[in-house]
Amino acid sequence: MKLVIAKSAGFCFGVKRAMEIAMEAAKKHPKTLYTLGPLIHNPQAVEFLKGLGVKVRDRIEHIPRGTVIFRSHGVSLKDLMKARKKKLHIINATCPIVKRAQLFAKYLHRNGYVLLIVGDPHHPEVEAIRSYIPEGVEVVEDAGGAQRIGPWEKLGVIAQTTQSFSFFKEVVSVCLERAKELRVFNTICHATTIRQMEAVEIAREVDCMMVIGGYNSGNTQRLAAICREIQPHTYHIETSQELRPKWLAGREKIGLTAGASTPSWIIREVELRVRHLKGLRG
Amino acid sequence: MKLVIAKSAGFCFGVKRAMEIAMEAAKKHPKTLYTLGPLIHNPQAVEFLKGLGVKVRDRIEHIPRGTVIFRSHGVSLKDLMKARKKKLHIINATCPIVKRAQLFAKYLHRNGYVLLIVGDPHHPEVEAIRSYIPEGVEVVEDAGGAQRIGPWEKLGVIAQTTQSFSFFKEVVSVCLERAKELRVFNTICHATTIRQMEAVEIAREVDCMMVIGGYNSGNTQRLAAICREIQPHTYHIETSQELRPKWLAGREKIGLTAGASTPSWIIREVELRVRHLKGLRG
Repeated sequence: MKLVIAKSAGFCFGVKRAMEIAMEAAKKHPKTLYTLGPLIHNPQAVEFLKGLGVKVRDRIEHIPRGTVIFRSHGVSLKDLMKARKKKLHIINATCPIVKRAQLFAKYLHRNGYVLLIVGDPHHPEVEAIRSYIPEGVEVVEDAGGAQRIGPWEKLGVIAQTTQSFSFFKEVVSVCLERAKELRVFNTICHATTIRQMEAVEIAREVDCMMVIGGYNSGNTQRLAAICREIQPHTYHIETSQELRPKWLAGREKIGLTAGASTPSWIIREVELRVRHLKGLRG
Repeated sequence: MKLVIAKSAGFCFGVKRAMEIAMEAAKKHPKTLYTLGPLIHNPQAVEFLKGLGVKVRDRIEHIPRGTVIFRSHGVSLKDLMKARKKKLHIINATCPIVKRAQLFAKYLHRNGYVLLIVGDPHHPEVEAIRSYIPEGVEVVEDAGGAQRIGPWEKLGVIAQTTQSFSFFKEVVSVCLERAKELRVFNTICHATTIRQMEAVEIAREVDCMMVIGGYNSGNTQRLAAICREIQPHTYHIETSQELRPKWLAGREKIGLTAGASTPSWIIREVELRVRHLKGLRG
């Protein structure tokens, strides 16, 4: 039996940064510290922060006073205004790569482009990006979606930072047929691309693939979907407790990767449980 | 037997315009009128102009005095300067759509983009476009070519106006992987796209396809290549005399299209010969 663990599994730069910001803030403001929505899309990490006193509120209205941390996915213009109006102390943990996508979105809009975001319209990152653009924004998840809109004179395209590059490419290809001028900023996070590429490589050589991460984590879901296309025995789990021994029965080579918001301790727990079940040393 | 003739066969707007400019000029300057290279890529049309007194010279050095017509494909900066220095009277018959591609090329260069032209590096149109850009120009004909160059921070892409859209799309797709910012102006002439699409439709339903046009005509060559992929019995001919009766033997449905620089009289001659050989009325 062999266990292959992706080097790129787990916390990306932006998530690590957000966690550090939150832990630092917890030392200074232990009593009145809130995040607007979960800081990152991982229930276990959020639970850990809760232990340090970081409370989660879904709406600014539910934060009476004190400090609010804007999470890695960014914040919508509306919430930013509300927080300012309420005179909350703001700590901005927006991932710099998400911030960069926001800046490109604004730049394209200011320069007369219709903005097309390739991503999940209901993901907080996409919601935040589009909130800064008063009009002329389209969001599509795949090439089919792009086929139903347009044509455009000037179209600007960006991607949700954790989008799959192949979807992005397909959408751009369709847009090319429907726009006289097309301006594309590849805002996909490099770490995401590398994580997806490594997952593909591993999924190709194993006979069972584990993808660890929050069920609410878009990048983990996509990682699992990409692996499943190659290896049907792909399982998306949040914690080691969910791993069922029968999944591993008869499997000789097991692959393991994790989303950008999955803490290393959870990856390690899954690894240990796999080793235990297969009679391997830790 | 059925004969299907493409509605889009023959002279495009830019070629028609260049021919009219040349014929008008021939009335005014019958003794000292030259074109720099063939006005359009059709030997028979060039021969016709010769009858009106329009002489072809390959180099400005070979034009002693008088009037020079710059052809539909445009003129290189070097030749333009030489013609000005020699104080030749200049008539510019550059196709407005080619001119537009030149303007986009200059714009992209001025704004700090590496320029990538999707087209044939030896085609006069491409040579003319790149001559205005002092440095930072790449020319590729297909996706493979794009894979060998880059990566780029800022890449601007345009196409030779008669390029096939599917090649253009493939190249843009590859570039997306290799550029942080990609700006694309679709400079492919709409008439070219329509001609290619109609040719594809016809090639699909016939059992023999004739593509008429100059052997030196890039757009006719591409038209023939596109048809040949669908219908192996595709023949590229310049004139009706080249049509061999055996090509039509046993063929029940014959398709006919022509490049952008093919005069209508040549298309009509081919049509009549096909009808004659197959015993159809004109």
